[in-house]
Amino acid sequence: MTDPRLLRQLGFIVEVDKLKQVLRRTSIVGESRLENSAEHSWHLGVMAALLAEYAPPGTDLGRTLTMLLIHDVVEIDAGDTFAFDEAGNTGKLEREHKAAERLFGLLPPDQGERLSTLWEEFEENRTSEARFANALDRFHAFVQNVSNGGGTWKAHAISMARILERMDPIREGAPALWPHVVRTVEEIMGREYQEDETEI
Amino acid sequence: MTDPRLLRQLGFIVEVDKLKQVLRRTSIVGESRLENSAEHSWHLGVMAALLAEYAPPGTDLGRTLTMLLIHDVVEIDAGDTFAFDEAGNTGKLEREHKAAERLFGLLPPDQGERLSTLWEEFEENRTSEARFANALDRFHAFVQNVSNGGGTWKAHAISMARILERMDPIREGAPALWPHVVRTVEEIMGREYQEDETEI
Repeated sequence: MTDPRLLRQLGFIVEVDKLKQVLRRTSIVGESRLENSAEHSWHLGVMAALLAEYAPPGTDLGRTLTMLLIHDVVEIDAGDTFAFDEAGNTGKLEREHKAAERLFGLLPPDQGERLSTLWEEFEENRTSEARFANALDRFHAFVQNVSNGGGTWKAHAISMARILERMDPIREGAPALWPHVVRTVEEIMGREYQEDETEI
Repeated sequence: MTDPRLLRQLGFIVEVDKLKQVLRRTSIVGESRLENSAEHSWHLGVMAALLAEYAPPGTDLGRTLTMLLIHDVVEIDAGDTFAFDEAGNTGKLEREHKAAERLFGLLPPDQGERLSTLWEEFEENRTSEARFANALDRFHAFVQNVSNGGGTWKAHAISMARILERMDPIREGAPALWPHVVRTVEEIMGREYQEDETEI
């Protein structure tokens, strides 16, 4: 008989396969189809490994990688909510916490608790690792939108102030990347950003 | 102007998006479609984080994670080759080395060299990290095949000896998982495995 601990780990591993079926609002490069949250999480891991030099000093890359790999699994139950959809975001927190309880509850208790805590750490955005992970999460959407000529922002007529407000975790968690973000958004929008701009 | 170093890093990040379009022979759970190599790499990262306790003592998880995240990017140029397709595997090594040169060559030289070395380390399968990463790569295909009732093996009429030979990196890189592998293959095939079985 297989060790019950391994069986629980395998149960989780098979269950999270479903993240490959959760679609995001952003397209893969070339816009042939929408991206799913599993691919997105992979891409974030690659970005963390490559852009570690822009993280706040002392950030633990291994912890950040694990955090990024599991940060979206709650979407298996709770779905992906479009950042700019206010109605859809109502109740999101509660849905995600219920999802975390069910999914991490599949694991052996010690591991379930460790991953659940790591996921909460990402959500609370207070440690260096969480801030850097959140910065990359936004930076990925940013890089994709830029590769597709600003597609999602234009399609949904998002204002410059709103885009930069959404991208603010980059300024906070990976400040060295921020000037590039502002400059690029300005180029796409064809004008300079005024610090005191309000949302239109 | 954006720092040329960051521009090269971004060039690589955008280029590897193409891994989301490289299809493998294995299906996602439920068999609704084939899996792509980006999702596969994500899943391997999650598995590494969860199954680290089965790695040889002293295995560095952070290094293993980075290795797993980038181990398949060469497929962007070289394609995914079905493990049991002997003709398709001719020239695979050369194709993959050319791909590594082009892709890692997009990065700033120090990073390109670091990742290229890490990819070669995976291929050469000599360090604990590489052995554990290779074990997980096989174990993922194994878990998927089992979830889908042994689909790929049955569809291609792969013999028990050949399956276990293919899975041998698990015995080598994560020996604690091996008894589970043999037992499960026996259950699917409906008979016990004889150590001296030859390929039929």
